[in-house]
Amino acid sequence: MWQLLQFPLCPFSRKVRLVMAEKGVPVELIREYPWERRDEFVDVNPAGETPVLIEPDHGLTLIGSQPIAEYFDEAVERSPLIIGDAAMRAEIRRLVEWFDEKLFREVVEPLMVERMRKRLVNKESPDTRVLREAMRIGNNHLDYLDYLLDHRRWVAGPAISLADFTAAAHLSVIDYLGALDWRGHRQTKDWYAVMKSRPSFRPLLGERMDVIVPPTHYDKVDF
Amino acid sequence: MWQLLQFPLCPFSRKVRLVMAEKGVPVELIREYPWERRDEFVDVNPAGETPVLIEPDHGLTLIGSQPIAEYFDEAVERSPLIIGDAAMRAEIRRLVEWFDEKLFREVVEPLMVERMRKRLVNKESPDTRVLREAMRIGNNHLDYLDYLLDHRRWVAGPAISLADFTAAAHLSVIDYLGALDWRGHRQTKDWYAVMKSRPSFRPLLGERMDVIVPPTHYDKVDF
Repeated sequence: MWQLLQFPLCPFSRKVRLVMAEKGVPVELIREYPWERRDEFVDVNPAGETPVLIEPDHGLTLIGSQPIAEYFDEAVERSPLIIGDAAMRAEIRRLVEWFDEKLFREVVEPLMVERMRKRLVNKESPDTRVLREAMRIGNNHLDYLDYLLDHRRWVAGPAISLADFTAAAHLSVIDYLGALDWRGHRQTKDWYAVMKSRPSFRPLLGERMDVIVPPTHYDKVDF
Repeated sequence: MWQLLQFPLCPFSRKVRLVMAEKGVPVELIREYPWERRDEFVDVNPAGETPVLIEPDHGLTLIGSQPIAEYFDEAVERSPLIIGDAAMRAEIRRLVEWFDEKLFREVVEPLMVERMRKRLVNKESPDTRVLREAMRIGNNHLDYLDYLLDHRRWVAGPAISLADFTAAAHLSVIDYLGALDWRGHRQTKDWYAVMKSRPSFRPLLGERMDVIVPPTHYDKVDF
């Protein structure tokens, strides 16, 4: 069976878990806290980052959320995630990159540093200036999602795709950290309620990180 | 004909130019300086970043180097770039991400800010502390490339792939900015000499950015 080295608040681990659940591929979860820089982990992935996916029986090691997502979309026919004609596939990959890079760097990463890492590792208080700025930009990202969902049924087009799962993975981490203000974002809120109710999403929402408690609406489909 | 909005020292634009040249797809180059944030450009790509590729006759717009590379690798059979079995394809994509994110963020981007942006836009001097740190990390990246090329014929395995073109695109920008010290990196130097001699690479090496002059070895295959 596949083994996924991951931790609950890693958005890229969440993306892989969603992909594997949608594809119906069983996986054993193994907690890895990348900031501990465990020797055996860094030997496998020199970038020192989650997720890493291992199939010990076949000696396969897959590293990084996008290579893993592309792998399963090529290998498993069920629930295709990069779909449609060439233009649609490019649009899906553009938005995946948007969330994995732009949303991550501007919002998810600073929130993880301030609200998780400083608490767990550095035992420091968060920098409220950084938090406020991340939340302000997070709000702009919700505006952009509203705009997309005003023009399309799903994030990248008429059908659900990897863009939806990627966006939802990142938003779920922001939401866990109590930094999403859903007011005024009806389109994205409705879409996220649908994403949350998928069987692939439920296990993520039930998981907790020690010490860090999500807001009460976090795991509710009706929020 | 395809039109590529790009600028000479953008490593992602270079990656796309290499891919298109290898695939034999003609393209018209249009210079775009993303920091000017031209309205029409930001309307097309809300991220405000190069490269953007447009096919006016078919109304196609492709955004971002990896979506564009995946597009042409799916659409054009010649010179396949994401090749081999599933494990090899995942390894190619892992390394592409390594160069596009890690090498870019740690080395290429700070060098572009200090040696290009500050000069062209802010009319400031570079921060030598930032420059030194970027060059130090750049040297570690060359060590990692040496290690890969010690074990493999090409960067990701036995055949040339998108990982080679991506690495070469980023290295060529660092080299243009005079920040690569090739001493002690024989494996990577030999490999880069081969990359430089490919017909797809020659046009890149002939191009110049106003005001910023590359070192004399920059466009020489024998350096």
